[in-house]
Amino acid sequence: MADLPATGPADALLDDPMIGDVSEGRVLRTILSRTPAGDFSVVGPGDDAAVIAAPSGSVVATTDTLVEGPDFRAAWSGGYDLGWKSAAVNLADIAAMGARPTALLVALAVPKDRRLSFIAALADGLRDACAALAPGCAVVGGDLTVSATLTIAVTALGDLEGRAPVLRSGARIGDDVAIAGEMGVAGHGLSVLFRRFHPDGVAVPVVPSALAEGEADAIAAQLRPAPPIGLGPVAAVAGATAMMDVSDGLALDAGRMAEASDVTIALDRSALGAHPHRALAGGEDHALLATFPAGALPPGFRRIGSVVPPVRGASVLCDGEPVGPFGWDPYRDGGADAR
Amino acid sequence: MADLPATGPADALLDDPMIGDVSEGRVLRTILSRTPAGDFSVVGPGDDAAVIAAPSGSVVATTDTLVEGPDFRAAWSGGYDLGWKSAAVNLADIAAMGARPTALLVALAVPKDRRLSFIAALADGLRDACAALAPGCAVVGGDLTVSATLTIAVTALGDLEGRAPVLRSGARIGDDVAIAGEMGVAGHGLSVLFRRFHPDGVAVPVVPSALAEGEADAIAAQLRPAPPIGLGPVAAVAGATAMMDVSDGLALDAGRMAEASDVTIALDRSALGAHPHRALAGGEDHALLATFPAGALPPGFRRIGSVVPPVRGASVLCDGEPVGPFGWDPYRDGGADAR
Repeated sequence: MADLPATGPADALLDDPMIGDVSEGRVLRTILSRTPAGDFSVVGPGDDAAVIAAPSGSVVATTDTLVEGPDFRAAWSGGYDLGWKSAAVNLADIAAMGARPTALLVALAVPKDRRLSFIAALADGLRDACAALAPGCAVVGGDLTVSATLTIAVTALGDLEGRAPVLRSGARIGDDVAIAGEMGVAGHGLSVLFRRFHPDGVAVPVVPSALAEGEADAIAAQLRPAPPIGLGPVAAVAGATAMMDVSDGLALDAGRMAEASDVTIALDRSALGAHPHRALAGGEDHALLATFPAGALPPGFRRIGSVVPPVRGASVLCDGEPVGPFGWDPYRDGGADAR
Repeated sequence: MADLPATGPADALLDDPMIGDVSEGRVLRTILSRTPAGDFSVVGPGDDAAVIAAPSGSVVATTDTLVEGPDFRAAWSGGYDLGWKSAAVNLADIAAMGARPTALLVALAVPKDRRLSFIAALADGLRDACAALAPGCAVVGGDLTVSATLTIAVTALGDLEGRAPVLRSGARIGDDVAIAGEMGVAGHGLSVLFRRFHPDGVAVPVVPSALAEGEADAIAAQLRPAPPIGLGPVAAVAGATAMMDVSDGLALDAGRMAEASDVTIALDRSALGAHPHRALAGGEDHALLATFPAGALPPGFRRIGSVVPPVRGASVLCDGEPVGPFGWDPYRDGGADAR
């Protein structure tokens, strides 16, 4: 976490009023003063809609929402973290199509008693995630409303730069299976949060001095994931036959790719790092999982297995043994308000 | 309300489970089986992101959210109404740029105890609003999560068909000011709901037999607005110099256009219908307010005033008298949970 800007009250907000006590105009100015125009913005915020360049004649679009409770805890995630993560998870979906992210639209529903500094930090996180992960992409529009439940719905747009989209369904027998980005680190961070900072089923703030080696980095990976967005287009140029981002763990997501492609994905346990179980079960790193013609991996991707003919009842194998489609979501499975 | 399909339990949902008790897959199938592909869908739902045609090399994008409490009451709005309205308000923002709507992305955050039939009706409303208001536009993607607060965040995309976008800031002195669509009807419907069906500050279901003439239509306009989406591109082709949709009432929104254009908008009271005050104060009809070179109004638009040199302190005049930027939002101003 040390290499990222601190979460905290933002500049020029010394009075720091509650959202319910300020005009919508001031809230919007707080956001817009922090989110510069991007390379693709033709008409930015302030009109009925934004206009974004779509040079290749199509647009890639995805939406993903973070809701307090099922998706995050305020005790663990500050405004900056939430802005960063809500951008990152959507940028990863654009990259996973082989596209370059061009714009974000942000729908915020915020409790009246949240402070304006929270919104400012959220805008900083959105901006910094775009700058770090997808330069040229920017917030072009949004919507603001009050709500009893803090909700951040981001829509990301992207451009294919003339290429065909890379779908989940294109994996071919004989392809190499490869990954770019972390596997299981963000999931480990979430398990640390639930084991250490969730007494009696209630989230409490993280105490950095209580963390063992590697745990701080794992928590940072959970709260502010940094998927390799730029490698999505790289994979497409290199001839990726299928691609998706790993949001629910390698076992579950590789199974989805295998089923969409009518193949089986055979993973090599030795390629899954020091903690293969974490890699298989842990989601939210938003690594890019892709298949390539054998031997054609571009830089940034590492081989973790191969595509084999479909095996009945086993869409994913690890060292030849079937892997169940397990995945772990403690927000829903073990949290205080389990689904 | 009589000419629209009834809201109610949808077909093939005889068991009608709660959202918290069914798989995400079943919920998604319930939605997708009701929302056909559109004319612009290249890659539809099911992959990391959708791909939508953007033939003119840019894309128009907007997002608008409906939150239970500040934006609607469950006692008044069923799933069908909410699907319809969440589509309509976003389509109007696309039309107001002079663009043709091409696609919707829908982020749903739903309490666990809502029934699957509610989601089915919402999908029906989204589909029918697209079919009725913007043929060819369709739901191309979305996101589903649980939340304590029902929240519907829709993003709409559109294509300019080679034209320049029509901004709020282009009104020129001497232009005619014109409107397409209703003024003040939806606002009247909302006031009927609050006056008649909100005893002790709590919303109760509408009793049709209790309604006076016109009130049923006004409530329908509030719950299922039908803005003239197709007239957005018509206005652009005809040379509209400025355009926006009227969501907060003519006084407030004409004032925004006047300020963005550095002019004053002079309205003729006689052109504002039988209830000028309703037209000035009542929002949510999402009529299209536009300015055109004098005498150049296209069919579907009617003249309501003219653009005059800026008058200090009066961005909107009505019969020569300054109109304050008033608007009435009883959800926030007079509702049980007033902001």
